[in-house]
Amino acid sequence: MTKYDLIIIGGGPAAYTASIYASRYRLEHIIVGEKLGGLATETNKICNFPSEKEISGMDLMKKMEEHAKGLGVDILSDKIIDIKKTKDGFCSTTQNEKKINSKTVLLTTGTKSRKLKINNENRFIGRGVSYCATCDALFYQNKNVAVVGGSDSAQVTSLYLSKIAKKVYQIYRKNELRGDPTWIEQIKKNKKIEVIYNNNIQGLVGDKNLEEIILEKPHQGNKSLKIDGVFIKIGSVPDGLLTNKLKLAQNKQGYIKVNNQQETSLQGVWAAGDVTTSSNKFKQIITACSEGAIAVENIFNFIQKNK
Amino acid sequence: MTKYDLIIIGGGPAAYTASIYASRYRLEHIIVGEKLGGLATETNKICNFPSEKEISGMDLMKKMEEHAKGLGVDILSDKIIDIKKTKDGFCSTTQNEKKINSKTVLLTTGTKSRKLKINNENRFIGRGVSYCATCDALFYQNKNVAVVGGSDSAQVTSLYLSKIAKKVYQIYRKNELRGDPTWIEQIKKNKKIEVIYNNNIQGLVGDKNLEEIILEKPHQGNKSLKIDGVFIKIGSVPDGLLTNKLKLAQNKQGYIKVNNQQETSLQGVWAAGDVTTSSNKFKQIITACSEGAIAVENIFNFIQKNK
Repeated sequence: MTKYDLIIIGGGPAAYTASIYASRYRLEHIIVGEKLGGLATETNKICNFPSEKEISGMDLMKKMEEHAKGLGVDILSDKIIDIKKTKDGFCSTTQNEKKINSKTVLLTTGTKSRKLKINNENRFIGRGVSYCATCDALFYQNKNVAVVGGSDSAQVTSLYLSKIAKKVYQIYRKNELRGDPTWIEQIKKNKKIEVIYNNNIQGLVGDKNLEEIILEKPHQGNKSLKIDGVFIKIGSVPDGLLTNKLKLAQNKQGYIKVNNQQETSLQGVWAAGDVTTSSNKFKQIITACSEGAIAVENIFNFIQKNK
Repeated sequence: MTKYDLIIIGGGPAAYTASIYASRYRLEHIIVGEKLGGLATETNKICNFPSEKEISGMDLMKKMEEHAKGLGVDILSDKIIDIKKTKDGFCSTTQNEKKINSKTVLLTTGTKSRKLKINNENRFIGRGVSYCATCDALFYQNKNVAVVGGSDSAQVTSLYLSKIAKKVYQIYRKNELRGDPTWIEQIKKNKKIEVIYNNNIQGLVGDKNLEEIILEKPHQGNKSLKIDGVFIKIGSVPDGLLTNKLKLAQNKQGYIKVNNQQETSLQGVWAAGDVTTSSNKFKQIITACSEGAIAVENIFNFIQKNK
């Protein structure tokens, strides 16, 4: 069985950048990710990656993936569900019961969408409830939709949906949208988007598919809105499975604490991207890429020293 | 006179990324740089920027510049030679005596090439002595050249020159090249490149143009080599002018100390890119970009709070 120098767990911008550096550093490594491309692929419009004026998350991640693949990395589309320290490294087990041995580990497991945690939310997933407009928007052509949230990703979702749907309600619990002012200005100018402030969704109603949402407070006299789809964009939470298996130091929200070399509290394990506390917690594609590069430079030095 | 929210001093990857974020955050800002594109433009082949398989530094920086310009930033090609704290911000003075007022400052002044510090080095600049193969390689078609140094930038320079020159001597003071193993392997396989280890240049000889270099120790019995051009790639030093004018905390080598928000020791002044101690001192285009983004997110918050 191959013993890799490095296993990169996850498949977003941090993972691919790490792999590009690892290939150039001649580290024998493998990327194992459940969802290749990561959360970035769910963004339909990225306008702040420095070398691309405007690109979809999917296209940007394809570019990175092709770059990484072109340098020869092994990529496995699977989920690591267990990881154990061995005598001289780590053994990771995938959902499909494949075991992978490696000298070092780089966790780039990112975050997953936060749920509203209301009744019927799980029942209507794929039947009116979505966490990803890039994935599901086209099901709602000329229909009425709602977006829940008030930060950048909610704004981008509303703007994108306004091109496809008939009407977009954006429901936000606070009295002002926050984040990138460019998006906020565009929301305010857009006639298809109506922002409902200081409100929240209380219930999801429908037979087979979602038909109606119940608001906490009445909006223009109505406590319910007829809509066909609701996009929940209320932030994200780190995936804690492997953080906990490895007992890594984490902050209250479960993000992995790393030092300025992207090292975690456990020797031989590094972390990069949205799952960490680094880059001043500014979770951007460019910061994730940078963290992946910094981690691998450090991993290379570690492996050289321990040869 | 316009009072900007932010002046970005320098014009490399950190500056352009910072400007892209600043434009989206609706910060009134200006980029002032002596050399737009920064040191990155001197690299003829970049293979580790995640979204580009292979690109010249010039082309990558053009992409970033176009992106930043497209968002409407003011760009001034000039050098800031003085900067003073004012009552409510900073006043920067350019070489052409233009004065620019701003609430905040982002220094992305980068580094400049380190010199060999030997006799005739300055006299032969442009007449055989160069610090930039991308700029000057084509003057040496089918000629004999030397490269001094043993790190990534020296290797990339030798490999590039091997496509143009007749013969490339790479002279390095240590007994093994260091850095990215991919470049080292390519150097070792390349028949046009001869690495001279454990040696250094002692003298530069010529009439109008450089004709000969004198080595510290004989190489295959000869203390001198007939060459037409020497490319000095022995690292870089931070440009300390504004660091010193503002009395910013710096490390022994003169790199600006910043915290995890890219703030310097002086309130209202941030720094990003090669000139800082951040990103674990891993000086890459991707890390510089990330630092520029992190700085601007923090500057935006600072300006919002102090409105």
